Amino acid sequence: MMNAYHSLTERFKRLSRLEHLSAIAGWDMQTMMPSGGSQARGEALAELSVMHHEILTQSSTGEWLDRAAQESLDDDQRANLTEMQRHYTDAALLPAELVEAKALAGSRCEQAWRQQRIDNDWHGFKQNLKPVVELSRQEAKLRAAVQGSTPYDALLNLYEPGMTSEQLDTLFGDLTQWLPELLQQVVASQPPLPALPATRIFPISQQKALAETVMQLLDFDVTQGRLDVSAHPFCGGVPSDVRITTRYDSAEFLSALMGVIHETGHARYEQNLPKHWAGQPIGLARSTAIHESQSLFMEMQLGRSQPFLQRIHPLICQHLTAANALSLNDLVRQVQHVSPGLIRVDADEVSYPAHIILRYEIERSLINGEVEVEDIPELWDDKMQRYLGLSTAGNYRDGCMQDIHWTDGSFGYFPTYTLGAMYAAQLFNAMQTQLPKVHEAIKIGDFTPVFQWLNDNIWCHGSRYPVNTLIRQATGEILNPRWFKQHLQHRYLGR
Amino acid sequence: MMNAYHSLTERFKRLSRLEHLSAIAGWDMQTMMPSGGSQARGEALAELSVMHHEILTQSSTGEWLDRAAQESLDDDQRANLTEMQRHYTDAALLPAELVEAKALAGSRCEQAWRQQRIDNDWHGFKQNLKPVVELSRQEAKLRAAVQGSTPYDALLNLYEPGMTSEQLDTLFGDLTQWLPELLQQVVASQPPLPALPATRIFPISQQKALAETVMQLLDFDVTQGRLDVSAHPFCGGVPSDVRITTRYDSAEFLSALMGVIHETGHARYEQNLPKHWAGQPIGLARSTAIHESQSLFMEMQLGRSQPFLQRIHPLICQHLTAANALSLNDLVRQVQHVSPGLIRVDADEVSYPAHIILRYEIERSLINGEVEVEDIPELWDDKMQRYLGLSTAGNYRDGCMQDIHWTDGSFGYFPTYTLGAMYAAQLFNAMQTQLPKVHEAIKIGDFTPVFQWLNDNIWCHGSRYPVNTLIRQATGEILNPRWFKQHLQHRYLGR
Ligand SMILES: [Zn+2]
Ligand SMILES: [Zn+2]
Repeated sequence: MMNAYHSLTERFKRLSRLEHLSAIAGWDMQTMMPSGGSQARGEALAELSVMHHEILTQSSTGEWLDRAAQESLDDDQRANLTEMQRHYTDAALLPAELVEAKALAGSRCEQAWRQQRIDNDWHGFKQNLKPVVELSRQEAKLRAAVQGSTPYDALLNLYEPGMTSEQLDTLFGDLTQWLPELLQQVVASQPPLPALPATRIFPISQQKALAETVMQLLDFDVTQGRLDVSAHPFCGGVPSDVRITTRYDSAEFLSALMGVIHETGHARYEQNLPKHWAGQPIGLARSTAIHESQSLFMEMQLGRSQPFLQRIHPLICQHLTAANALSLNDLVRQVQHVSPGLIRVDADEVSYPAHIILRYEIERSLINGEVEVEDIPELWDDKMQRYLGLSTAGNYRDGCMQDIHWTDGSFGYFPTYTLGAMYAAQLFNAMQTQLPKVHEAIKIGDFTPVFQWLNDNIWCHGSRYPVNTLIRQATGEILNPRWFKQHLQHRYLGR
Repeated sequence: MMNAYHSLTERFKRLSRLEHLSAIAGWDMQTMMPSGGSQARGEALAELSVMHHEILTQSSTGEWLDRAAQESLDDDQRANLTEMQRHYTDAALLPAELVEAKALAGSRCEQAWRQQRIDNDWHGFKQNLKPVVELSRQEAKLRAAVQGSTPYDALLNLYEPGMTSEQLDTLFGDLTQWLPELLQQVVASQPPLPALPATRIFPISQQKALAETVMQLLDFDVTQGRLDVSAHPFCGGVPSDVRITTRYDSAEFLSALMGVIHETGHARYEQNLPKHWAGQPIGLARSTAIHESQSLFMEMQLGRSQPFLQRIHPLICQHLTAANALSLNDLVRQVQHVSPGLIRVDADEVSYPAHIILRYEIERSLINGEVEVEDIPELWDDKMQRYLGLSTAGNYRDGCMQDIHWTDGSFGYFPTYTLGAMYAAQLFNAMQTQLPKVHEAIKIGDFTPVFQWLNDNIWCHGSRYPVNTLIRQATGEILNPRWFKQHLQHRYLGR
C-alpha cells in the first residue's frame, strides 16, 4: 500500500500542474490576449481555481496529512510535509462561499476602480471597497482563530509566513525614527538631476535589445524564459519557463531598464529553484518578501551601484543612439536620484519605505477593526505629510486610490516590499563580508561569485527552511534593519 | 430539482473551460514557449486531458444522458443532447489504460520521428510505428463494436461523423478516374512558371504587414484573435480568441500569404460560431472536413481566383519592396501553377487529392488488418507511381515518413482534407448560383455577400445539424464531387 506521504506528493504534483496552466494562461492574458478574449479567459481561470481548491481540500488530503505525520520521513520530506500542511490549512479553513464572495467583490471593485481612479471618484470607489474590507475581515478572523494571532497578522502570514505586526512595528518604528531626516539630508545635498534634452527618442527596438543584453549579463536563461511587454510589469510563468515583462517609454529608457533588472532578479530565483523538488511545495520560493529581496538585490543593491553602472554604461551608449554621449557620471546621477513624490511605483529607494509604512499602518487598523473605509483619505493625507512632507488632500487618484492591492483584498501584502528591501541589503552586506574580493569581480563584470552565493544561500533551498533560519544561515542573524540604513547612508550620503 | 439536461449543460461548460486552457497552453507551446519549458508543459497538458476524461466519463454523465432523453426539450436542446451523447460515448467506450498506452506510444513515435525523418531511418521508425498501429487497431475494434461499422470507419467517424469508407470509395474512386489525366493535361498545357530573380528578398516585417492587411480584407476580427509564427501553421485558440499562425520565408512570399488566407478561413468559422451556444457541444464547429472546407473556400476558391488576386495585387506591390513590379499576370501564374511533387503540404490543388487517396487507401487497409507496417513503403511507391507518376523508392523521408498524422495514431484524419476541398467547391458553386451578382462584388473587393452567405449557411449553425443536412440546406444536395471536378477544369483548363 502506498504510504500517505507518497499519496500527498502525487496530489501536490497534480496541483502544481494546474498552477502551471494558470500561470501561463494568466501571463497570456496580460501580454498576448486580444480584448475580446477576456470574458472566456476569466471564466476558464476561475474554473481552474475552483478545481484547484476542490482537489486541495478533499477530505483525503487532511487524512493523509495526519497519517503522514506518523510515518518515517527524512528531514526534507518533513519540511515538505510542513509546507503541504500550511497550504492545506490556508485553503481548507475558509468556507467556499466566503472564498467565492470575496473573489466576486474583489473583482467588482477592481474592475470599477480602473475607471474610478481616472475619475478621482472616491465616493464611488468606497462603496465597492467596503464589502471587500468586510469580507477580508471575516477571512482574517477565521484565520486568526486557527493561528491564535490578531486578524491582520493572519493575513500577513499568507505572504510572509512567521511574520507578525509586533515585529513589523519594531522594524518600521526604527525606520520612521531616522528615514525622514535622512531623506531631507539627501534631497538637500544631492547634485541637481542632469536634464535630458526634451527631443530625445529611445526607440523601443533599441531598448529591447539593450534589455536582453543586460538580462544575458545577469545570466537569465533564455532557454527557460522570455521577456515581453505588459501594462503592469511582472514575473510569471513556471520555474522551467519564467515569463518576465516590462513596459517601454520611448521618451525615457531607465525605468524600463531598471524594471527588467528587477524582474530578472525574480526570474533567476525561479529559474534556480531546486529541480529535484519541482512540483512539490518545498520546491517553491520561500515567501513574498524573500522573492522581493532577490529582485531588489539585483535592482537596488547591484543594479543601481556604481560598479554595475560602470559595467553597463558602454552597453547603453552602444544600443541607444540617443544616449551615445551619456557620461557615466550623469548615468549614476540619474539612477541614484532621490525625489519624494506621491506615487509608490515611481518612488526611489529612500522614499519607498514611507509609502509602505503608511499603507501598513492603515491596512492593519482597517483589518483589526480600529478604523473604517471612510477614514482612509484623512489618515493617508496625515501620514503623507508626516513621512514625506506632501499632501494628497482631495487627490484620491494619486493618494489612497493609486494601488490595485486593496481592490481585490490583498491586505497584508504591502509590508513585503520593504521587508524585501531590508533582506536585500542584509544579504548583499553578508555576501561582501564573506567574499572580500567580490567587488573586484563586479567591477570587471564577473558576476559569477555573486550568483553562486545567491544560489548557495537562497535559491537552492526553495522552501526547505523557515525564513528566519534561511536568513540566519546566510547572514549569521535574523532580519536586522541596520544593514538597510547603512546601505542608504553609504550610497546617498557617502558615509 | 435541476433537470438532467441542465446538469449536463453545466458539466459541458466546465469541460469547455478546460478545453480553453488546453487550447491556449497548446498555442503557447507552438509559438512562444522556450525549449526548456517543454517537459513541464507536456505534463501539465497531459494532466488536463486526464481530468477532462475523468469529468466527461463520470457515471453521472451517462445517467443524466439517459434521463435527459426523457425530458421535454426543444429542437436545439435535442441537437445539443445528441452531440453530448456522441462526445460521451466516444470517450467512455475506451478503457483508460488503452488511452494512456496509445498516448505514450504515440508520443514516443512522434518524438523519435522528428530525427528519424531527417535520417531517412525507416527501420528505426517502423519499430515505433508498429505499437501505434496495434493500439489504434484495438481502439478501432472497440469503437466499431459499438457503432456496428468496420474498424477504420469507426476512426473516420471521430473526425467526420457519419462518413463511411463505402462513400469514400465512391467519391475517391470517381476522382481516380479523371484526376490523373486532368493533371497531365494541365501540366502539358500550362505556361512556364515566371522565374523570380534569385536575389529577391521579401523582409518578414513587410510580409507580416501584408498578411495583416489581407486578414483585415477578409474581416478577421483582431479584437478576437491574433497572427503569430510557428514551425507548422495552424489555427487554434477559442472562438472569442482565435490564434492563427504562419511561417515566413524571406526568399518567397506566396506560401506564407496563401497560408494566412487558409488559416483565416478556419478562423472566421471559429469567430462566427453562435455566441449563444458558447461552451456547449452544439456551439462547436461541425466537423474536421467542414472546417477544412472553410479554409479551402477562402484559400482555393476565393484566394487563388483571378478576381481576388486582382484585388490584392496592388496590396502586394505596395507592401513588398521586392515585388513592386510584379505583374498581375505573373502573380496569377505563380498562384495557379501546377506541379506534381513528393510532398503533400507543398502540393497544388490539382495534385493534392492524389496524396490523400494514397494515404487513405493505405491507412484503411492498415487499420482493417489487411496490410502490415512492413508493407507501407512498397504500397506508397506503387501508388505514387500510379497517381502522380513519381517514385519514392528508398526515399522514406519524402515518402511514407513525411507526415506527422500516423506517428500519434490519427488514422482517419487524412480523407478530411479532400472532403474539405470538395465541400468548398460545392459551397462556392452554390453561392454563385444563389447570388448571381457575387462575382461583381468580389471584383470590386466587396466580400460582404460572400461572408454573409457563409455565415447564414455554415458558421451560424455550429453543430446544430448533421453534415449531410447542413450541406443539403446550403447547396440543395449532399456532397457531390462534380463541383470539384468542374472547378478544376474551369480554373486549370479554361473549360
Ligand atoms: Zn518585485
Ligand atoms: Zn486547414
